[in-house]
Amino acid sequence: MSNRKHNFCAGPCTLPVSVLEEMRDEFLDYQGAGLSLIEMSHRATEYDAVHQEARRLALEVFRAPDDFDVLFLQGGAILQFAMVAMNLLAPGRRAGYVNTGTWAKGAIADAGHYGEIYTAWDGADDGYTRTPDDSEIEVRDGTRYLHITSNETIGGIRFPKFPVVDVPLVADMSSELMARSIPWDRFDLVYGGVQKNLGPAGMAMVFIRKSVAAPASESIARYLRYDVHLDKESLFNTPPMFTIAMVGKVLKWMKAKGGLDVIEREAGEKAAILYRQIDGSEGFYSCPVHSASRSHMNVVFRLPSEALEGRFLADAKSEDLLNLKGHRSVGGCRASIYNAMPRAGVEALADFMRRFRAEHG
Amino acid sequence: MSNRKHNFCAGPCTLPVSVLEEMRDEFLDYQGAGLSLIEMSHRATEYDAVHQEARRLALEVFRAPDDFDVLFLQGGAILQFAMVAMNLLAPGRRAGYVNTGTWAKGAIADAGHYGEIYTAWDGADDGYTRTPDDSEIEVRDGTRYLHITSNETIGGIRFPKFPVVDVPLVADMSSELMARSIPWDRFDLVYGGVQKNLGPAGMAMVFIRKSVAAPASESIARYLRYDVHLDKESLFNTPPMFTIAMVGKVLKWMKAKGGLDVIEREAGEKAAILYRQIDGSEGFYSCPVHSASRSHMNVVFRLPSEALEGRFLADAKSEDLLNLKGHRSVGGCRASIYNAMPRAGVEALADFMRRFRAEHG
Repeated sequence: MSNRKHNFCAGPCTLPVSVLEEMRDEFLDYQGAGLSLIEMSHRATEYDAVHQEARRLALEVFRAPDDFDVLFLQGGAILQFAMVAMNLLAPGRRAGYVNTGTWAKGAIADAGHYGEIYTAWDGADDGYTRTPDDSEIEVRDGTRYLHITSNETIGGIRFPKFPVVDVPLVADMSSELMARSIPWDRFDLVYGGVQKNLGPAGMAMVFIRKSVAAPASESIARYLRYDVHLDKESLFNTPPMFTIAMVGKVLKWMKAKGGLDVIEREAGEKAAILYRQIDGSEGFYSCPVHSASRSHMNVVFRLPSEALEGRFLADAKSEDLLNLKGHRSVGGCRASIYNAMPRAGVEALADFMRRFRAEHG
Repeated sequence: MSNRKHNFCAGPCTLPVSVLEEMRDEFLDYQGAGLSLIEMSHRATEYDAVHQEARRLALEVFRAPDDFDVLFLQGGAILQFAMVAMNLLAPGRRAGYVNTGTWAKGAIADAGHYGEIYTAWDGADDGYTRTPDDSEIEVRDGTRYLHITSNETIGGIRFPKFPVVDVPLVADMSSELMARSIPWDRFDLVYGGVQKNLGPAGMAMVFIRKSVAAPASESIARYLRYDVHLDKESLFNTPPMFTIAMVGKVLKWMKAKGGLDVIEREAGEKAAILYRQIDGSEGFYSCPVHSASRSHMNVVFRLPSEALEGRFLADAKSEDLLNLKGHRSVGGCRASIYNAMPRAGVEALADFMRRFRAEHG
């Protein structure tokens, strides 16, 4: 594909070209069935193979242990903000939430309708430019789980290590889901939208410790209960079949690349290329994030003026480097470099940053 | 596409070939942008045009009046079972539900967690083979809305006319959404999954009277509130962009065919072709549904024995007439003939039914 551009969008994300081509080629007639996969029953043999392979690969690539299962749910990570509390918080129990910025705030707001939620740490004093040390996190008596946002897509910060606390962790990993390995024994639940590292928009993945799936209350509608979806292997109702098929293909592509270790190492290397440009720019580019908390997925940076930032974005676009604008709530620039962003794209951006500074610095 | 087969699946559904081809052709490079539409930000200019056109066409094709808007939500019609009650039922108000079968029962079960629900009519005595007359529907004092399932996909029954009652109607129209016109003045809300008449799986459409969108309680997570989605024109969070793009294309195709009147007339004609085969078969084929309540979307029928039904399904498949098996909960046969099923497909099935009876009758 000669026209292919480098897409640094924070989500939905760039996807492997080979995956897009495969879907295109089978789109009208799936394996000679005489119809498209998306026209099939979700109970059809052909779709079932796709569905089960995606489930299997998700657990395998993420290296989830046997006591975990994966759910494919609609409503994005945002619906999980509510479902986590609805399902895990029994009366008399509470949950601590680490407030690291925009997305953590959303999780706190939504969960608060379904149980007693407290803020276990708040990054407000630092302008949400870092994640906390374990010693800064307050875990109160009666806490069922500690919720963290492992990477803040807008703030560009991440937990460099997952907290070690006395209660199970629950993590919104949306922007680094399956971009890093995790210590499963400390987690009860990990969730995230798939539209950054894994596929098109329209689905969240929930990795859940099977023994905690029974809801704290029986008075929850079926779609909102983890145990219902667990029991039906995410076929309780018609699932988002196209998204699942795409995610399955991306997982296969990840596995062929060498799996999570390779993905995680590459993510660190790609991020380092950009942070080196920033740190070596004698202040022309600046990153507001504390260096230990810098995201490997969303590299945020500023230029000396908004005028220069505007010029930077326009010139980048003319070199086919797309979607580098920071989130509208914070401004500046942001390069999102998810799993399917090739190193060549990152190098092209670093080279552009170097030339832009030479011209305007 | 020479290999194309006739797909009578109850959902997901057959889609117009021209729509599938259009999506395939633009799948890798959307309008020369150098990336796929599904890789774009949901705030991108290109996607926004797709999103807004789908919204506009949904309202236009369904002829929704100005005081209604349309929402694109995840979680299927099943999540709406809960959201309708969460949002519309204030304390002290109740809602009546007409129990016409499998899907109505689901709506009743899920809504019951979020308000006082009563059964306004129950089809159990008739084995759920008909819908009620208005005079049979009980509407109690304090009723906020009457909920109906306008077409039962499994039972193969529909409301030939929408009830005239003293309270607003709420309808699950999943299996005939945009396959028939409705008297909007009697409705507060109409919803349905799109995966039957309108596109691939992964989304529900909710047509809501704007003045009733404010929720009965403030203590609802944002994703579950109609007013949040209304305010953001279904861009509160990352929407299922692929599904929306496909639905937009199907709506354009419907409009080009002549719109809802043509679609509705054709649906009646296609159904009549099959019911004529059944009624003229001297009992070889039988339809358990009361004739006035027969669905125009899901034509259910039995053969004299299960052995003959098995033979019927196998022979049909060998003639490229797919997915005619009835739902596993009721058995028998079912031909789902949604908007994109061409008349030629229905005629091929009728011809096959005639020949099969001549051979085995």
